[in-house]
Amino acid sequence: MGRDLLIKNALVWPAARQPAIENGSVLVRDGRIAKVGRFTARADVVVDADGQLLMPGLIQTHIHFCQAIFRGAGEDLPLLPWLKKVVWPLEAAHDEDSIFTSASLACAEMIRGGTTSFFSIETVRHTEHAFRAADKMGLVGVIGHCLMDETGGYAPLAVDIEDALADLDVLQERWGGHERLRVGVAPRFALSCSGRNMRVASDYAREHGLLLHTHSSEQIEEVQLVRERTGKYNVDYLHSVGMSGADVCLAHCVHTQQQERELLAETQTKVMHCPSANFKLASGIAPIPEYLKAGITVSLGADGAPCNNRLDQFMEMREAGLMQKIRLGAEALPARDIVWMATEGGARTIGMEDELGTLEVGKRANMILVDQSTIHTIPSTDPATNIVYSNTASDVLMTIVDGQILFEDGHFTQFDEEKLRADVRRHRQKLMKRAGLS
Amino acid sequence: MGRDLLIKNALVWPAARQPAIENGSVLVRDGRIAKVGRFTARADVVVDADGQLLMPGLIQTHIHFCQAIFRGAGEDLPLLPWLKKVVWPLEAAHDEDSIFTSASLACAEMIRGGTTSFFSIETVRHTEHAFRAADKMGLVGVIGHCLMDETGGYAPLAVDIEDALADLDVLQERWGGHERLRVGVAPRFALSCSGRNMRVASDYAREHGLLLHTHSSEQIEEVQLVRERTGKYNVDYLHSVGMSGADVCLAHCVHTQQQERELLAETQTKVMHCPSANFKLASGIAPIPEYLKAGITVSLGADGAPCNNRLDQFMEMREAGLMQKIRLGAEALPARDIVWMATEGGARTIGMEDELGTLEVGKRANMILVDQSTIHTIPSTDPATNIVYSNTASDVLMTIVDGQILFEDGHFTQFDEEKLRADVRRHRQKLMKRAGLS
Repeated sequence: MGRDLLIKNALVWPAARQPAIENGSVLVRDGRIAKVGRFTARADVVVDADGQLLMPGLIQTHIHFCQAIFRGAGEDLPLLPWLKKVVWPLEAAHDEDSIFTSASLACAEMIRGGTTSFFSIETVRHTEHAFRAADKMGLVGVIGHCLMDETGGYAPLAVDIEDALADLDVLQERWGGHERLRVGVAPRFALSCSGRNMRVASDYAREHGLLLHTHSSEQIEEVQLVRERTGKYNVDYLHSVGMSGADVCLAHCVHTQQQERELLAETQTKVMHCPSANFKLASGIAPIPEYLKAGITVSLGADGAPCNNRLDQFMEMREAGLMQKIRLGAEALPARDIVWMATEGGARTIGMEDELGTLEVGKRANMILVDQSTIHTIPSTDPATNIVYSNTASDVLMTIVDGQILFEDGHFTQFDEEKLRADVRRHRQKLMKRAGLS
Repeated sequence: MGRDLLIKNALVWPAARQPAIENGSVLVRDGRIAKVGRFTARADVVVDADGQLLMPGLIQTHIHFCQAIFRGAGEDLPLLPWLKKVVWPLEAAHDEDSIFTSASLACAEMIRGGTTSFFSIETVRHTEHAFRAADKMGLVGVIGHCLMDETGGYAPLAVDIEDALADLDVLQERWGGHERLRVGVAPRFALSCSGRNMRVASDYAREHGLLLHTHSSEQIEEVQLVRERTGKYNVDYLHSVGMSGADVCLAHCVHTQQQERELLAETQTKVMHCPSANFKLASGIAPIPEYLKAGITVSLGADGAPCNNRLDQFMEMREAGLMQKIRLGAEALPARDIVWMATEGGARTIGMEDELGTLEVGKRANMILVDQSTIHTIPSTDPATNIVYSNTASDVLMTIVDGQILFEDGHFTQFDEEKLRADVRRHRQKLMKRAGLS
């Protein structure tokens, strides 16, 4: 930090719904954007973008760092068996080192693919080590500590709410003042949390000014079980236990009733859409155009590596578009709306719209440079079309967070990629053995 | 050619439904596979694969080379308006140079992404120049010359069948004996060809031993129009004009009746599945698991860049899986079946199962080396899962056709990439102007 950075000769695309500026520049001072447009300036570090696209860093909401190391486990299973047979046993088997390694892997994949901010949901233990990893890797975001007191017969992940709050107190004390990271409160979902847990969690979050994060209405079977248990549809139920409002972020919302949609809009509750996971776990197609039309803030995320199998916002953008077209017709969900969800929608979701999501003076300098001249992108046309349908994560040439270059010329600047690979292999093996799955 | 090539220290995956061989080797002599397994040998060129995955080259059926240069034009339109407003005017505006450039771009994107063989469908003129491009680029495949005598009001692409056959005669004379390329006969679809055209085309193809290629049952509206016009469902109608049999390859088959499916199976007619295009043009989800269960050969292709927007078999494989899961459940269409369609299914479709699709002694040495150690692939598990859900086209480290290395270390070996980029830009501009779309 401290050194000025100038990106010049770029196709600067400052915001999803604004036009791009040819031969544009962005000046960064002290990690913040100091100037955007057509100008010349001096700086300590000058990058010639060679006409490539400079845009806001992508923001993935609803992502499980602790599951990155589960990639490829539990293929071809629907949600509830997939949770009980694979994901929960692996989460329960995590130790400090495997959480740190998994979160490091998730952050590395995000940096490589142009994701600069996130809202993660971790497991019920060792969340400290997800913070350590994200701190080291240099991203901006919110890490949700997971709360589960009822686990439907899977006891090892059940934690009393009082113990969970004590863990949150410790996380707040250690990480509450971090310049890039924040603590979130994440009661997992209605089927693994008691009503009391949800209520206490939401009270705690409001007392401390923290964001709430949970899953809702991902699959029909889950919606039915919640109805049997509570007499209510999922969003209605969550509302009844304090889990609605501008500080509440709900993952999925695939299966919702009209009155639930109205409730989401009225309470300004956020929807975190995960197209790949909804496809792969056969959950269904969320009514995203309807949500956007109702004024609900929608963002995008890759969910977890075991249900996806990548943490790649480019893939999520493409699949977000394709899934609505097959549902509603070829005109549905234009590319610009998708880029908006992947940037500004994410910033609003994590309450950082004054800091992130666009390239504007005073905001954090979180930006990516994306190649528009690859063989699979040319002839290059509208930046939104390119970003959603032609470009891939591998086209990200440079990832910048708070003015720091985290990825450049095919290399990560903040960590040793070979060491991470070796750690991932070692901890995956040990984890599978501890979980009894190898 | 002529020089021996040895790939050693690879994870050799000889066929989709066979296990992979760790620390395996493949020896190539005179462009053919001479040995596969665990062995040591001398060769003129030795490549150490460093443990990465060596597998058969991918085969894309149903791909429009001539549309590659239309990428990003005609976004967010359904099939029939998209054809009439964008694709047909651009095809009619093509000249020799723009076809050559478009086909070169398509081949380059395929080579970069591990596609080594194809069945293309071109336009009604200048098919000669698609051959020139594919010849230069070094791929193996079939290029279909397009026949249209009725164009629903779009006259510039209508060509009398006699003139089309004369064009086919010339193509046969010039390219019929090519070591890598074959001529195909491609009456476009039931709505742009008269019954006589279809019948004459199928007779011509059989007389000359050529494959037939057409579109069928892509969208509901098209199926209805064919019924109004012919009184028959699409596959039934095509059968009635000679367009069924083991030498007939039908693109899409999204909307078919039970009796049409039985007809496809009985006549051994091939289905070419294009998941991305079916998504983006809002066509629907083809009943692929049902086709496979009925014994119908199914292969995969990207269709055209303007409806996709990439020519990327990795993307098609992933989307082939995701679209069936959301239709039938998370267990549907396992990854191995998808890799089979992308390799052996493609080889059978173009009648080259004795030459392509697996790594077996005597077959053409068409192989790709795919990185299994990227940040978005680790921890690496089953090769089929990796290839379908984790790997991307950018993970292809090396593409080999007939023993020739066409792509290696991020570079194409057969052509100047910068020149191609410049040609694409120049011809796109001129083409849009000629078509009145710029």
